[in-house]
Amino acid sequence: MSKSAVPVNLADKLAQFSELWSQKKVAVLNDYDVKLAKLKGEFVWHTHEETDELILVVSGRLTIQLRDGNVVLEPGELFVVPRGVEHCTVADEETAIMLLEPAGTINTGDAGGPKTKAAETLS
Amino acid sequence: MSKSAVPVNLADKLAQFSELWSQKKVAVLNDYDVKLAKLKGEFVWHTHEETDELILVVSGRLTIQLRDGNVVLEPGELFVVPRGVEHCTVADEETAIMLLEPAGTINTGDAGGPKTKAAETLS
Repeated sequence: MSKSAVPVNLADKLAQFSELWSQKKVAVLNDYDVKLAKLKGEFVWHTHEETDELILVVSGRLTIQLRDGNVVLEPGELFVVPRGVEHCTVADEETAIMLLEPAGTINTGDAGGPKTKAAETLS
Repeated sequence: MSKSAVPVNLADKLAQFSELWSQKKVAVLNDYDVKLAKLKGEFVWHTHEETDELILVVSGRLTIQLRDGNVVLEPGELFVVPRGVEHCTVADEETAIMLLEPAGTINTGDAGGPKTKAAETLS
């Protein structure tokens, strides 16, 4: 325990990287990854057929576009995108989020393409 | 989707209850519950043999006592208590946390006793 018994400070972890649209793993909960990411601009429309996806905004402002409307998240707000629901995130300003989903979930879901990127562990 | 496509504002949800040591479910991620709780004082030593437990401090200050040392969490800090690791939370001041663990996880784990309480859904 002693080595791992250190809290994860979200602000400190976010200060360790500047890359956009790159998920950084900061903790593990059973077979789920806790990840951080910085976003600016628009992602790609995609669907996770096998899992829900939790998104908590830490700073900035995130719009999660859904086919039947948008969800806008301010800091301290979270939303769970249900499995099978197509979505596309967009942020006008740089926005930091925490994500929770099963390990191995692909960021672009079923869409693939050049923005596909595996999560990296933040040392 | 339209009915559920509303963000969960953690501060707003926390303002809806004052009861201590009572977990309030605010979202569901697959078979996991996202819960909020307010703590003050000391809980009971217990272990979750079957699951890790994620605790994120929203406000206040939380000490997670472990048998080989303490983890102190400030707002914006999280810790995952590994399955099988005995722990006991204590908060000198009133502290608000977000918890993530599989639905049905008992708050007192293997210890049972009078502080055992099922999570309630926050309307």
